[in-house]
Amino acid sequence: MPAVITVIAGGVGAARLLAGLVQVHPSADLTVVANVGDDLELGGLHISPDLDTITYTLAGTINPETGWGLADESWQAMDTLARYDGATWFRLGDRDLGTHLYRTQRLAEGAPLSTVTAEITAAWGLELTLLPVTDDPLRTMVTVAGEQAEIGFQEYFVQRRHSVAVSAVRFQGAAAATPGPGVLAAVADADVVVIAPSNPIVSIDPVLAVPGVRQALEDARPRTVAVSPIVAGAAVKGPADRLLRELGHAATVVGVAELYAPVAAVLVIDEADAALRGAVEAEGMRCIVAPTVMTDPAAAAALGTTVLDAFTAD
Amino acid sequence: MPAVITVIAGGVGAARLLAGLVQVHPSADLTVVANVGDDLELGGLHISPDLDTITYTLAGTINPETGWGLADESWQAMDTLARYDGATWFRLGDRDLGTHLYRTQRLAEGAPLSTVTAEITAAWGLELTLLPVTDDPLRTMVTVAGEQAEIGFQEYFVQRRHSVAVSAVRFQGAAAATPGPGVLAAVADADVVVIAPSNPIVSIDPVLAVPGVRQALEDARPRTVAVSPIVAGAAVKGPADRLLRELGHAATVVGVAELYAPVAAVLVIDEADAALRGAVEAEGMRCIVAPTVMTDPAAAAALGTTVLDAFTAD
Repeated sequence: MPAVITVIAGGVGAARLLAGLVQVHPSADLTVVANVGDDLELGGLHISPDLDTITYTLAGTINPETGWGLADESWQAMDTLARYDGATWFRLGDRDLGTHLYRTQRLAEGAPLSTVTAEITAAWGLELTLLPVTDDPLRTMVTVAGEQAEIGFQEYFVQRRHSVAVSAVRFQGAAAATPGPGVLAAVADADVVVIAPSNPIVSIDPVLAVPGVRQALEDARPRTVAVSPIVAGAAVKGPADRLLRELGHAATVVGVAELYAPVAAVLVIDEADAALRGAVEAEGMRCIVAPTVMTDPAAAAALGTTVLDAFTAD
Repeated sequence: MPAVITVIAGGVGAARLLAGLVQVHPSADLTVVANVGDDLELGGLHISPDLDTITYTLAGTINPETGWGLADESWQAMDTLARYDGATWFRLGDRDLGTHLYRTQRLAEGAPLSTVTAEITAAWGLELTLLPVTDDPLRTMVTVAGEQAEIGFQEYFVQRRHSVAVSAVRFQGAAAATPGPGVLAAVADADVVVIAPSNPIVSIDPVLAVPGVRQALEDARPRTVAVSPIVAGAAVKGPADRLLRELGHAATVVGVAELYAPVAAVLVIDEADAALRGAVEAEGMRCIVAPTVMTDPAAAAALGTTVLDAFTAD
């Protein structure tokens, strides 16, 4: 199996695949380049949802009821905030708040997000390297169809429950951002690069929008395998299918292949989409058909094996 | 009894006296001008300890074990923060965090501290008016004897447990601060002004340091009664006695009288200090001797009656 693996990651789908990879290949030198476009400032706190979802999932302490946040969570702070009619649309659990307090303290002290992230993953005993794609501010901004003002990603995703049509997505700060320490090297040096089954528009694209990262992925294309987050024309979780359609793409594995063909040689699609293998290959990607829906740890492990083996037949 | 009462307040001692006043004179038009010199920013949150102690005490929801924070508190956020070796010297309970999150959200939206404070006290059903002495930044800075750099008040009070000698106290921002809305009028219009038994150096002095407030108190001197926080040469709570000594004052009711004579006509001292009545009066203040240690609500109510009656014999 490949020794050095780098995963381009959003939140939940990426976290599950990472758990599968760790399970089947515990000795791998595993680096994650993660999206920070859905970070937000709330009540003075710096919140990094994708970094936390990955950390908590790999630590085995993700909240099983919500899919985000910490297990054994309580909500006393939110109850007090509700007494004041404060903004409670983004739910901050009491345990989880400790992470946001720590991150915000350290950033205020001048530590870069990458350093703070390394401290947090170390505290949870993670052995992988979790790299925010950039230490600079990067914010995914969403234009809701028919509205003038952009809203932040979490306002779209959580506050509006992604139930509104989107006419544009923009990555604020991307042009001025530089890749975080180790990001470009992690892509260049990997035996295999994996694009996780995350939302292509709002989880993977903001990573690629940081100058230098898309080029690094293009250079690594022969060693890069992507997993489609679209199965049978629908997102496994979240609004990826609608976002693809609203922004002019096909909400199918073929639409995913169009987006990823410049940066990945291989696309893993679900067995439900086996009939589209030829159409994917027509986009210039080799196509692997396999179970991709990670309903349990065994399924995640199986998908981990699939991506690790993606280039062994070459 | 006087109809309009204004109390110059620090934290715990003031909160207890206020609870006594509300008990014996529920129909009073009661305004509190409170210290914000011990506010701090921590982990991105704006924390106003004296405002919260007063609010929670009057709401009947103060934590009886600690004397600050909320009752029925949990500490999950602190437990997570401790996992990261974060700064846990200032303990933020989970319920309490909701207040800090709300205040910080609203300040970030541009609401002044006075507005946010009114919203918070309304949410707890308080009928008094709680006014931060200023909406501007005001920070009590402490120089520890033998050290060069100043530290914030809470670093002295909580982190170092006020167990170090102090060589100077400074109110950063005071010169540029303006009194909050209603502050000067509350002093000018009161039938009786009460200086609560708070620390003269670090609770009352920062209030007086806001330009205009000391003059307003001097103008109201004939109607102003102070309660000594020093009983039998010691602070009822906290480091007031040591601070008085370290900064060149007598740590007795006479030292307190020297400080308050320009702004208050009457000083209430404890029965334990009855022998010092003459020395207090020699400082130019009328002296009332009464029980002042608020060990329970009945004692607080009795002290409330004492200050309300301070001018009835005139």
